[in-house]
Amino acid sequence: MAEHFLEDSVSAVAVRIDAEHPSGLVFDPHQPQLRVTDLGVVRGDGVFETMLARDGQVRKFEAHLQRLARSARLTEIGIPPAESWRSAVQRGLDEFRNRGGLPDEVTIRLTATRGVDGEPASDDPAFAGTYWALLSPVSEEIKAKRGAPIAVTLLDRGHDATAAERAPWLLLSAKTLSYAVNMAALRWAKSHGFDDVIFTTSDGHILEAPTSTVLLLRKNPDEPQRPTLLTPILETGILPGTTQGAIFTAAERAGWNLGYGPLTPEDLYTADHLWLVSSVRLASPVARVEDRELAVDPTWTQKLNEFLNQDLPVQHPTT
Amino acid sequence: MAEHFLEDSVSAVAVRIDAEHPSGLVFDPHQPQLRVTDLGVVRGDGVFETMLARDGQVRKFEAHLQRLARSARLTEIGIPPAESWRSAVQRGLDEFRNRGGLPDEVTIRLTATRGVDGEPASDDPAFAGTYWALLSPVSEEIKAKRGAPIAVTLLDRGHDATAAERAPWLLLSAKTLSYAVNMAALRWAKSHGFDDVIFTTSDGHILEAPTSTVLLLRKNPDEPQRPTLLTPILETGILPGTTQGAIFTAAERAGWNLGYGPLTPEDLYTADHLWLVSSVRLASPVARVEDRELAVDPTWTQKLNEFLNQDLPVQHPTT
Repeated sequence: MAEHFLEDSVSAVAVRIDAEHPSGLVFDPHQPQLRVTDLGVVRGDGVFETMLARDGQVRKFEAHLQRLARSARLTEIGIPPAESWRSAVQRGLDEFRNRGGLPDEVTIRLTATRGVDGEPASDDPAFAGTYWALLSPVSEEIKAKRGAPIAVTLLDRGHDATAAERAPWLLLSAKTLSYAVNMAALRWAKSHGFDDVIFTTSDGHILEAPTSTVLLLRKNPDEPQRPTLLTPILETGILPGTTQGAIFTAAERAGWNLGYGPLTPEDLYTADHLWLVSSVRLASPVARVEDRELAVDPTWTQKLNEFLNQDLPVQHPTT
Repeated sequence: MAEHFLEDSVSAVAVRIDAEHPSGLVFDPHQPQLRVTDLGVVRGDGVFETMLARDGQVRKFEAHLQRLARSARLTEIGIPPAESWRSAVQRGLDEFRNRGGLPDEVTIRLTATRGVDGEPASDDPAFAGTYWALLSPVSEEIKAKRGAPIAVTLLDRGHDATAAERAPWLLLSAKTLSYAVNMAALRWAKSHGFDDVIFTTSDGHILEAPTSTVLLLRKNPDEPQRPTLLTPILETGILPGTTQGAIFTAAERAGWNLGYGPLTPEDLYTADHLWLVSSVRLASPVARVEDRELAVDPTWTQKLNEFLNQDLPVQHPTT
């Protein structure tokens, strides 16, 4: 689903972080803020996170900050400490309140770029780049679309399942700004009658979607209330999904079974249910993969979203 | 060679193109010009070209404009017509003259992004995005480094030789702003004692370097003045190199033999000479690939650079 990056651009709020403003400074995102020499735009050389705040509470904040730090480490980009990001986001939320009202749901995007080449913004590596948080109300359109069944095509991501381990320079598990391929895959899907994409390795393993994580459910005939949730292993070179991780924690507490698998397209076709999960869209049920129909059950989708409402710590096999 | 993007940022000149200024408007690149919501920085969603102007003459201008248009087509980004880009570059060069002197060599980078999401800059698709040319004097350091032998490591690009044909959404032959992997590969090389990288496919084919094209020379014992130049085939998913293409045209006129090959590392090791060629660095002789030494002969390097001085039309097997 090639959702717009900005759900509601008119009322967006932006907060930048720099050495002089380590707690954040509100600015108008409709005014130019970046130089054309910023490596973020010159070479997609930066990292980001997208989070959801509901009623002023940022979901999975710690997990997003940890993943941002991990992406920054993988790309060797210095970033401000977690308290700077937390403070900047708080200032952004306060700005909404000052303007007359905090929307019930706000998308928050944290971005860090390597900054202007050869001109570090500060001698302190933690503030040498360009950093900002962008907050925008989640649109009614996005809210209305949640839970709507989607059709997905499987697209080859080009590399095999061992590339991430043998070639760290491919940054396969870093969330960088270099998303042109993700966007091209979504355009391809749209133009071929699909809503979204699940990437596969060249040797037939399931990876992830361009902006979400794959999650499947296998029913347990002996204990219908304790199904099994499965997601692809991280070693194939995917982002550790914060939404999947939070669902897993809650599901485990509810007595469900969890699994991390090398998954194949056949696993998707034979799943009882399949979702793409992400921070803002939440759990999107998949009704079709290529030409194969899949059962959609709103009860299970609702259950996953209830798990997310608990906002529990994120669980991954490797963290 | 992870050269700086901006060789001389202080005296850089920038010219933007929009519907109101289709011939370009000079602006100060030290002032913010881009919104943080521009998809160029949000998702590395844009395309670019880097060219060299010597004594005010832009080399291979037509080939660069054609490749920019090709990248834009592959990414479905509308861009201004060629005359807009030509005019903008001319205004940039004139700005140097107005300031007191045109540098003998100027790097010119043309950039086109998809613009601000959901807010096209114009109803005309050719002006809906964000467009600018950035001109900066080639530094003395870059000039001094030209011709210096370099050591290169071979790094796996992850995909096999057929990925480009079977998976067009990977944009393997488009020059997009999503260059984070190219930069990560260069950092990897530097930290392992190399100057640059030659990417290979997972099945052992030679691709390209992160910011240049691979060119090798095989001597011809029967006719020493008519050696053979070889470069990788485009079908493996590489950028059509404008510098390689201009060298080929001149070499052919000089009676040299040309070849486009599926090339392997062994072809590099057994080449008589090897270069990485690009618009600004020109021909950089490779003295070592991994732990294999290669002969460097300044005479041949000079010959290639003389070919470039002729600024002939670019020649590719598929164009």
